[in-house]
Amino acid sequence: MSVAQEFLKANETYASTFKKGDLPIPPARHVAIVTCMDARIHPARALGLEEGDAHVIRNAGGRTSEALRSLIISEQLLGTTEIVVIHHSDCGMLTFSNDDLRNKVKQELHANADNIDFLPFSNLEQSVRDDVAFLRSSPLIPENITVSGFIYDVKTGKLLPVD
Amino acid sequence: MSVAQEFLKANETYASTFKKGDLPIPPARHVAIVTCMDARIHPARALGLEEGDAHVIRNAGGRTSEALRSLIISEQLLGTTEIVVIHHSDCGMLTFSNDDLRNKVKQELHANADNIDFLPFSNLEQSVRDDVAFLRSSPLIPENITVSGFIYDVKTGKLLPVD
Repeated sequence: MSVAQEFLKANETYASTFKKGDLPIPPARHVAIVTCMDARIHPARALGLEEGDAHVIRNAGGRTSEALRSLIISEQLLGTTEIVVIHHSDCGMLTFSNDDLRNKVKQELHANADNIDFLPFSNLEQSVRDDVAFLRSSPLIPENITVSGFIYDVKTGKLLPVD
Repeated sequence: MSVAQEFLKANETYASTFKKGDLPIPPARHVAIVTCMDARIHPARALGLEEGDAHVIRNAGGRTSEALRSLIISEQLLGTTEIVVIHHSDCGMLTFSNDDLRNKVKQELHANADNIDFLPFSNLEQSVRDDVAFLRSSPLIPENITVSGFIYDVKTGKLLPVD
């Protein structure tokens, strides 16, 4: 069975007791979260989110430059006023360079990824500071939007503020 | 209290009983999900995901072109072999054009977003087909990767395959 088929089966159970069909599009808690795609992060459990609460934007590393398009839509069209950036310990983005991955793509796929910046980083705390600073300095993110940065520790489940 | 502070408080409860500190980086179910940031989607509940199961990539619309960087990392470095693309009913991306949002940004923020493609769409099923086709035709996604497309119905909680 493909994983997609397993998802359909699990979804039957979810839909059979679903009672949240009347939620509006704008997030109830007026917040957008930017975090990593990492499988170990369960944003809803780790942060206490229910259906309808928050925009959740996820990509490799939780990089805010790539999230900018989504954040503008979130703020300008759907009324969010706060952004929470969460990177995490033991992140895969700490383990490779652009050259490493571009070479691997050439070798394994005989394809060219030289024009892709994979946005890896070498310092976790600095990556959070950089990504918060990117948003705070962007003319596309208004000054009244609150932006804060955190590290999620995959060993302990703890969320730690980054100043 | 900011929402970030509420997250820290909710996270204390999560971390206090956390027992999943030994999970490896590669997703246990070898799958990457691409879906929308929409607040009403709770991927873990809707699909039956536990910590460690799956990469979850989310952006406005669940667009796969923007997810490509993350998917290459997921497949080449972290061993995923299946991609599940999920768009959803009542999506905000059906409600505006690039010109609409670029003009709004000019008026509200006195800033220029003319170089940003916000990736809106006008036909939900077609957007899923387009995003699956984009991946299937990309030289950066190998042919042995299974790609399937779905629509999540926010009124019923049901996941529906798109052929």
